[in-house]
Amino acid sequence: MSKVIATLSDAIREAGLKDGMTVSFHHHLRNGDFVLNMVMEEIARQGIKGLTVQASSLFDCHYPLIEHIRNGVVCRIETDYMNGQIAKAISEGLMERPVLFRSHGGRPAAIDSGRVTIDVAFIAAPASDPMGNANGISGPSACGSLGYAIPDSRRAKKAVIITDNLLPYPLSPASIEETDVDLVVKVDSIGDPKGIVSGTTRMTRDPVALTIARYAAQVIEHSGLLKEGFSFQTGAGGASLAVTQYLKPIMKRLGITGSFGLGGITGYLVDMLEEGYFTSLMDVQCFDLKAVESISKNPLHKEISASRYASPLAKSAAVNALDVVVLGATQIDTGFNVNVHTDSNGYITGGSGGHSDTAAGAKLAMIVAPLFRARLPIVVDKVLCTSTPGSTVDVLVTQRGVAVNPQRKELKDMLKAGGLPVYEIEELKQLAENYTGAPKPSRPFGRTVAEVEYRDFSIIDRIGCVER
Amino acid sequence: MSKVIATLSDAIREAGLKDGMTVSFHHHLRNGDFVLNMVMEEIARQGIKGLTVQASSLFDCHYPLIEHIRNGVVCRIETDYMNGQIAKAISEGLMERPVLFRSHGGRPAAIDSGRVTIDVAFIAAPASDPMGNANGISGPSACGSLGYAIPDSRRAKKAVIITDNLLPYPLSPASIEETDVDLVVKVDSIGDPKGIVSGTTRMTRDPVALTIARYAAQVIEHSGLLKEGFSFQTGAGGASLAVTQYLKPIMKRLGITGSFGLGGITGYLVDMLEEGYFTSLMDVQCFDLKAVESISKNPLHKEISASRYASPLAKSAAVNALDVVVLGATQIDTGFNVNVHTDSNGYITGGSGGHSDTAAGAKLAMIVAPLFRARLPIVVDKVLCTSTPGSTVDVLVTQRGVAVNPQRKELKDMLKAGGLPVYEIEELKQLAENYTGAPKPSRPFGRTVAEVEYRDFSIIDRIGCVER
Repeated sequence: MSKVIATLSDAIREAGLKDGMTVSFHHHLRNGDFVLNMVMEEIARQGIKGLTVQASSLFDCHYPLIEHIRNGVVCRIETDYMNGQIAKAISEGLMERPVLFRSHGGRPAAIDSGRVTIDVAFIAAPASDPMGNANGISGPSACGSLGYAIPDSRRAKKAVIITDNLLPYPLSPASIEETDVDLVVKVDSIGDPKGIVSGTTRMTRDPVALTIARYAAQVIEHSGLLKEGFSFQTGAGGASLAVTQYLKPIMKRLGITGSFGLGGITGYLVDMLEEGYFTSLMDVQCFDLKAVESISKNPLHKEISASRYASPLAKSAAVNALDVVVLGATQIDTGFNVNVHTDSNGYITGGSGGHSDTAAGAKLAMIVAPLFRARLPIVVDKVLCTSTPGSTVDVLVTQRGVAVNPQRKELKDMLKAGGLPVYEIEELKQLAENYTGAPKPSRPFGRTVAEVEYRDFSIIDRIGCVER
Repeated sequence: MSKVIATLSDAIREAGLKDGMTVSFHHHLRNGDFVLNMVMEEIARQGIKGLTVQASSLFDCHYPLIEHIRNGVVCRIETDYMNGQIAKAISEGLMERPVLFRSHGGRPAAIDSGRVTIDVAFIAAPASDPMGNANGISGPSACGSLGYAIPDSRRAKKAVIITDNLLPYPLSPASIEETDVDLVVKVDSIGDPKGIVSGTTRMTRDPVALTIARYAAQVIEHSGLLKEGFSFQTGAGGASLAVTQYLKPIMKRLGITGSFGLGGITGYLVDMLEEGYFTSLMDVQCFDLKAVESISKNPLHKEISASRYASPLAKSAAVNALDVVVLGATQIDTGFNVNVHTDSNGYITGGSGGHSDTAAGAKLAMIVAPLFRARLPIVVDKVLCTSTPGSTVDVLVTQRGVAVNPQRKELKDMLKAGGLPVYEIEELKQLAENYTGAPKPSRPFGRTVAEVEYRDFSIIDRIGCVER
């Protein structure tokens, strides 16, 4: 009784993969992932063509996709995020068919509802038993949560576990359950630990980021939401992450215990859990080794699936219970629309991830961003790409002050009363332009290279080809 | 943000329950369950008629169903097991439409595949948060695993949690996840602790049962399966349970550590886990307080869903990895077919539960039964109802000796070599009849009152009306 099959090549054949099908991958191994590349290389070797790659995210390490696209092995990409060489090539017109961007909540909604059909899910697993019970918490490629792979495993016609750490049945905990797994392949290594998670997520020392983070913590303090049972999500980026270090003394002073920390989890949120600032963590993805270690041993640190994290079609998801989320931006416009897909030159450098999901769900969605980067203004008249609609964004925090969405008048009054430097967003734009000069009119963009599907499945923007 | 609704009456209306729909219930509160009765009473009060009750099991406490059937509120029952007054009334012709019996694996297979549609699942939960994250491990009605409720929660069009223990969000662990829950109702009490689980499952002192258990342990010893990584399931009945006390010294003497214990879990399997005889327990249902306590605190004691326990449509289920299962019988015939649905008089007194699933999955399916009960022979020419086909049964163990299915010649040789008293099953039948006399020819039975659907969805037998 075993689903273990000798080689990846056999697994691809046994799974019945054919031209034109959809293959899926998760991104918990991040820029250390070996699995997408080894699978696609073997698929190419077998002469299979015209595939859709349905990946929760793509990183620089996935550059071999460029050749597979050129050779017709891959003709379509659907993902929540991409960066690095593949993103640059897509921006410059590599693919005939536009990439479809979803969010981390929209993707599981599309999968759970049958809008997306996955023919074969290839699931990188840091640990698996011979029947496909799998988790991310042990072995040389431990990555912690496998939250983004769970919907794929449950809905794919065929699910193939690829692991470098085969353990005895029954493996527990089983993030992926044997009920959903067809085949298990043992390989030498599924990833490069150095790329999978950063050893520790480092706290920024950039004074601009720290100023922004300090204001952000003050906004939370005066938002009316910082009370017993407070729930919180923040990203792993400079200013976002630094919010935790300013929030802790405020919570301590006010004697407040939060309920849950959500999201991609860093060691800083683990510290807050262990120090009693929160009573639990709900973890769809671990960002650093401390988070990986914590989820493997602390029962208050729980793995959640992407559906439970953020699916808009779930009967409810964790983002709906979120008080405050702190998010980044490459651009934000005077309508509070946020771009996290492209840089200021229109090159794809990211994607929604959970940005638009948490903004829609949280009671307070806060954007932290410097007024400008590399002499390009961040606050602009019109973002090059709307990733998150302004109607779901409550406040922008910069190093010079904060701007509140006019929809949230009562919040504006509270922040003013709290002594924060509150401006109109047009004033912050003007402040930025005082440093950078008025931005050059955007270059003309060519045909559509990517579409942005919002979590309600509507296309909210299109990204044009960058003319080199 | 809350799904809590004031009353059960409101919940039924809000869930959109209409005439002719299907409502589902789980049986983890066993004979202490208040929820099925309170829901059906309110449904009756609202004048809703013609419902199908899709219950994982029904017990004596559910006798009010009899009135709901007479009044047309319920016109169909689908269940895996029933006993007590409702079973007696069904046997005597209460319902026009036959009851459909499934197994504990066949039921989730039917639900997961869409063969069964559940309009509203009413899920008794010993603990829930306001968004419907629920578990069975705490509160006054703690019952441990909620394994049988998990498929219902995932597939029902509407899922309503009924709890007497509302806890803060996010409740963890979440056996039932908020993604699947529509409404939460708080009531005074969901069950009577005395009926939910027995305080302790008591070991039998019946010398016949102990003799059978001793032989059963010897059969396991000589089956070739008792080696490192051995996996095991046994029921909570007299002889079945007693097997554990004879198996332990054998495992100790041989220096064997098993892998997992499966199934409905008793304190005796918990002892074996804690004493290192097994490395984990996979628990779809807790039979006693010790099991409830263990699952709430021991990470090696894991809850599994009914699908993962036994679904024949899962890509694999735990029963497929099972070495040995020890099962009871009300009758077994010379073709090794087993009856667990009726007594020797043809009255419905039970059902498959996991009987046919584990028999089909395990490498060794063993029936333990006395030769006769109350002067009625257990080994017969033809069972009154085939619950588990003889092709999946390997060996019968009685107080006078064992009989091996002729399909398993090598097993017969091993047991003989091990010194066990091996007979042909016809010889055991004759031994029984030496005590009881030849059984009376069965009385004629009337129209079909129940159909037995095997785990492959075929109808393998029909149960006739008992003429009073």
